[in-house]
Amino acid sequence: MQVKAAVAMEAGKPLQIESVELEGPKAGEVLVEIKATGICHTDAFTLSGADPEGLFPAILGHEGAGVVVEVGPGVTSVKLGDHVIPLYTPECRQCEYCLSRKTNLCQAIRTTQGRGVMPDGTSRFSLGGEPLYHYMGTSTFSNFTVLPEIAVAKIREDAPFDKVCYIGCGVTTGVGAVLYTAQVEPGANVVVFGLGGIGLNVIQGCRMVGADKIIGVDTNPAKKELAEKFGMTHFVNPKEVEGDLVPYLVELTKGGADYSFECIGNVNVMRQALECCHKGWGVSVIIGVAGAGQEIRTRPFQLVTGRIWKGSAFGGARGRTDVPKIVDWYMEGKINIDDLITHVLPLGEINQAFDLMHEGKSIRTVVTF
Amino acid sequence: MQVKAAVAMEAGKPLQIESVELEGPKAGEVLVEIKATGICHTDAFTLSGADPEGLFPAILGHEGAGVVVEVGPGVTSVKLGDHVIPLYTPECRQCEYCLSRKTNLCQAIRTTQGRGVMPDGTSRFSLGGEPLYHYMGTSTFSNFTVLPEIAVAKIREDAPFDKVCYIGCGVTTGVGAVLYTAQVEPGANVVVFGLGGIGLNVIQGCRMVGADKIIGVDTNPAKKELAEKFGMTHFVNPKEVEGDLVPYLVELTKGGADYSFECIGNVNVMRQALECCHKGWGVSVIIGVAGAGQEIRTRPFQLVTGRIWKGSAFGGARGRTDVPKIVDWYMEGKINIDDLITHVLPLGEINQAFDLMHEGKSIRTVVTF
Repeated sequence: MQVKAAVAMEAGKPLQIESVELEGPKAGEVLVEIKATGICHTDAFTLSGADPEGLFPAILGHEGAGVVVEVGPGVTSVKLGDHVIPLYTPECRQCEYCLSRKTNLCQAIRTTQGRGVMPDGTSRFSLGGEPLYHYMGTSTFSNFTVLPEIAVAKIREDAPFDKVCYIGCGVTTGVGAVLYTAQVEPGANVVVFGLGGIGLNVIQGCRMVGADKIIGVDTNPAKKELAEKFGMTHFVNPKEVEGDLVPYLVELTKGGADYSFECIGNVNVMRQALECCHKGWGVSVIIGVAGAGQEIRTRPFQLVTGRIWKGSAFGGARGRTDVPKIVDWYMEGKINIDDLITHVLPLGEINQAFDLMHEGKSIRTVVTF
Repeated sequence: MQVKAAVAMEAGKPLQIESVELEGPKAGEVLVEIKATGICHTDAFTLSGADPEGLFPAILGHEGAGVVVEVGPGVTSVKLGDHVIPLYTPECRQCEYCLSRKTNLCQAIRTTQGRGVMPDGTSRFSLGGEPLYHYMGTSTFSNFTVLPEIAVAKIREDAPFDKVCYIGCGVTTGVGAVLYTAQVEPGANVVVFGLGGIGLNVIQGCRMVGADKIIGVDTNPAKKELAEKFGMTHFVNPKEVEGDLVPYLVELTKGGADYSFECIGNVNVMRQALECCHKGWGVSVIIGVAGAGQEIRTRPFQLVTGRIWKGSAFGGARGRTDVPKIVDWYMEGKINIDDLITHVLPLGEINQAFDLMHEGKSIRTVVTF
């Protein structure tokens, strides 16, 4: 079938809207009509050419929501008409990782996904007879896409696509890091570094679980107002702190943060995030993605005296199990997505979404089909 | 009263056996007759002068066992005749740290302990009218010592002092790191870096909890035989590995260690210990003490893909609660201490114990009184 997609023909160039050929789903796969997709920094990172694993030409996009319109042979967990969110972190429930109960990083289709193809080693997309690469196993910058059954989360049908698509990446990454990776408990004091989309979702995750102090750290004071709306109780601008930031935060939290989250991707901030944690039990979670080859460092004494350093990918959430719950929380008003989606554009204007992001004008832009 | 002690008069000099004046216990304190004490690297580190917090003249020693011979006013948890192990990490059960349920690092008397005095700010020891500093709150290189009530663990009376004194530091540090800090579960694959006293205790802790592969890493092949006796299943000599050690260990563990322990104090080995851990859930525990100012480093990707970096002090054990259990395990044959105590000397020959350690001839030397 012919579908309409924004194609990344090569690194550093704008996306091109094209009519693309899409093969139907094979065994264990489903065809999903994408109704909305968010545009995320990771898409921009790959499109820029900075991603060493980026492949071109490809159909990017990994933060979508849509409806199952066809299922391949053997598909049992979803059916025609089901509303779904595509998962770049699948959940097969059968691999060593899924069965470990310790991680959400299902490895069932990791190799082929990383090569930009479906689990059988081929692409379903082509343009002018030449294959296009899939991206993150999702390729949501197309009004139809094919996904493995294990890479879709079935969600309730009354959830608006143009909001819950954001749960496909940003919301889950932030809220999940609080709930699943750090397991923040009521009454905890938390410091969040970076008040972009991820940081705001961390903040509302902390509010949801009943954290006490929720301290946001950002050099841009314009971030304060919205962060407070999401539950931030204290704002710290490092530029306005006299002396070192770490002792200031330790003082503000009366001994150190019970949990801290780095939502920027800056290795120096990652160190501050660890070292502002409470002796004895403080847990620091790295969410931001650092530049290639960059390293974090600290004195081992920080760990020997009880701080724990960990990281989070997709918020530690199991896609098929946890994503539907997060959709429920949005529908129940426990989390706020509406105020994070600052712009909505049609597919034809998708390049403008990247511009808005680079200019810092948007928190999240959603493209509708 | 006059007691017999090995006194560290100044850094870098041998200990001097002296008759020292010891004041009796004040409120909340107990007088303990020390029956045996181990000599640990930490004593040697302080004696060498390398410890920036070292104070002189002092009575060193922190790995003892003995009998309560007098109790000060208000002491309720131990009585005359009780057998005890002094605790350099006390357990008051009332401070923020004890009540957090998340750490063993009781802070009740940390400040005065660090200043070499009792909680009231004074020393109980003096020589020729001049006060001597306490050390780590324990000062077990004396046949009598005074301790706060919260800094003694009451143990069973049939346990031999010249063996269970080692539980006062080394045994608990190694076994505890497995049980309390890492919480290694049956069937786990473990890599232990460094097969000295701590590493051997980590190994027997892993055996006790039913670990599967217990891999010991040491550049000295002479360590292999004893480590096997303690439960090591595989020995790896980094000098004999072709290529990089980390991928070799990942291959040997079929994907990476579920848990790794650094028992050396080398920041480069700490990195290897983290990076040989299993993607998704591997936990690396730093036990070794690195040189002043040294830093650990890694790429944050190691953490974002699920590895956890933490540290352990006194094995994560709560002194009064957990140390008596470890004594029981020794008495029940679940752990082996006898084969780790390679030398026993009288107090008068205590300097020889340091020589044996520096020459690598002993695992643990115990001094009896």
